[in-house]
Amino acid sequence: MAELIGNLLVGQSGGPTSVINATLGGVVTEAGKHECIEEIYGGANGILGILNEELIDINEQKQKTIAGLRWTPAAALGTSRYKIDFKRKPERAAKDMDRLFEVFQAHNIRYFFYIGGNDSQDTSHKVHLEAVKRGYELRVIGVPKTIDNDLPHTDSCPGYGSVIKYNATTVMEVGLDVGSMATDDGSCCIIEVMGRSAGWIAAGTVLAKRGNPVKPPHIILLPELVFDQEKFLAKVKETVAAYRYCVVVVGEGIKNKQGEEIGADMSHLDAFGHPVLAGAAEKLKEFVHGK
Amino acid sequence: MAELIGNLLVGQSGGPTSVINATLGGVVTEAGKHECIEEIYGGANGILGILNEELIDINEQKQKTIAGLRWTPAAALGTSRYKIDFKRKPERAAKDMDRLFEVFQAHNIRYFFYIGGNDSQDTSHKVHLEAVKRGYELRVIGVPKTIDNDLPHTDSCPGYGSVIKYNATTVMEVGLDVGSMATDDGSCCIIEVMGRSAGWIAAGTVLAKRGNPVKPPHIILLPELVFDQEKFLAKVKETVAAYRYCVVVVGEGIKNKQGEEIGADMSHLDAFGHPVLAGAAEKLKEFVHGK
Repeated sequence: MAELIGNLLVGQSGGPTSVINATLGGVVTEAGKHECIEEIYGGANGILGILNEELIDINEQKQKTIAGLRWTPAAALGTSRYKIDFKRKPERAAKDMDRLFEVFQAHNIRYFFYIGGNDSQDTSHKVHLEAVKRGYELRVIGVPKTIDNDLPHTDSCPGYGSVIKYNATTVMEVGLDVGSMATDDGSCCIIEVMGRSAGWIAAGTVLAKRGNPVKPPHIILLPELVFDQEKFLAKVKETVAAYRYCVVVVGEGIKNKQGEEIGADMSHLDAFGHPVLAGAAEKLKEFVHGK
Repeated sequence: MAELIGNLLVGQSGGPTSVINATLGGVVTEAGKHECIEEIYGGANGILGILNEELIDINEQKQKTIAGLRWTPAAALGTSRYKIDFKRKPERAAKDMDRLFEVFQAHNIRYFFYIGGNDSQDTSHKVHLEAVKRGYELRVIGVPKTIDNDLPHTDSCPGYGSVIKYNATTVMEVGLDVGSMATDDGSCCIIEVMGRSAGWIAAGTVLAKRGNPVKPPHIILLPELVFDQEKFLAKVKETVAAYRYCVVVVGEGIKNKQGEEIGADMSHLDAFGHPVLAGAAEKLKEFVHGK
């Protein structure tokens, strides 16, 4: 295979994390070392900016700016949740693909790096398949980013460490306050964390215990395990009896025996067609109050 | 007036803050310098622990522990929201007062320091009046603590600085993320902060702007000002048109022209008889969606 010479385009997708800019910095810095890559472009607001041909010439940025990406919060290129949705909007998706390759061709894009989670990796894969189909020489590299830590082939995904640091610290802080307010009446505090199908964020708050079984969180509910209301209430009771308070961490997507998300509101779907979750902690509160 | 000789009792009340232990440390350290004060006791869980005669001998604590209070989170003595409620439960309140003075007398308490917010200051005042009525010599000192910054005669109350540091930082962080996800569709993020009648917390998040009018928060809604839906929606529209996104900070207790809290749920009252607020941001979201 002859070396492919051309320009690079990098985009950021989905929710920003504390480190998605560090990843961007890594892509740009490494790309600068390879002669086969001529220009380096950034797409503004992910795939959306590419469709709108809003490309930023990263080679024109100061070295200091690129180095600073390691410590820059949010998403420097801008991001979006726009999806090329072949399933629900096949006509628009086909048009989007045409437009994407038009932009790729116009700017001789031969390396496409897309930083994002599951949906973005799926987009990258589709772009790759499309390139093969069209006979357009393109190297597509999906770069992992997620707070959920649910990307296959990654152990600890960039984005997970920082979200756990934040969440575990919050649980620790809340735990100290709730513990100091606990009286014989007993109290129960429920903290809902993100993670629709993956319990990594909920599980990671165990760090707040610092190895001490007495410290919160006392109960962690993972979406991977079937939620058992009776067992849960018994454990809350037992914990309150022992320590006068109980801190529960619940992953937003926990499901009952019927496989239904206990906090799901099926009347609202997000851009990717997933139900908007708002109420796992709210539901648990009702259960505990009704106890 | 002859010098009053006896023991000191100090308690912490209401929600803990980052600095309520620093205040406790100050009381204990200063008290140790005065010969008129013999023993120093802490009441566990505020007034509740005093009623249960759960007194902690602070003189027995190591000097290092007392010094460490300056940097110790939560409430070291424990706290509670228990209220001597003459208005709604006069019989129990009268019994509580009898019991309180029984405990004071049994331990020769002559100095009573109570660290807390409005309700706790009210309790301190009632204890003082009761002491006068009973002819029991007692110096009652209410020590200000509140995150709301709404205690008369204080300018910046202990508890307010730390809550503002936390809230302004959060608004700054959320603002950066929301800003980097903003596309031409426009987005609006609403952050609800505490403060039922006092807008100090909401107002303090202005620090997140760091003097730059373009930076979030773009709109701050204070409970002291009547909420004007039309004006609000116009300002959201204008902000989104200018910056593609708008970050709103709302104090939980904002009221409409009829003087009703827009987020109030009158069916739930807390221990002090105030309605539980849960939905100011939720209501604003509905308004913005309906726009």
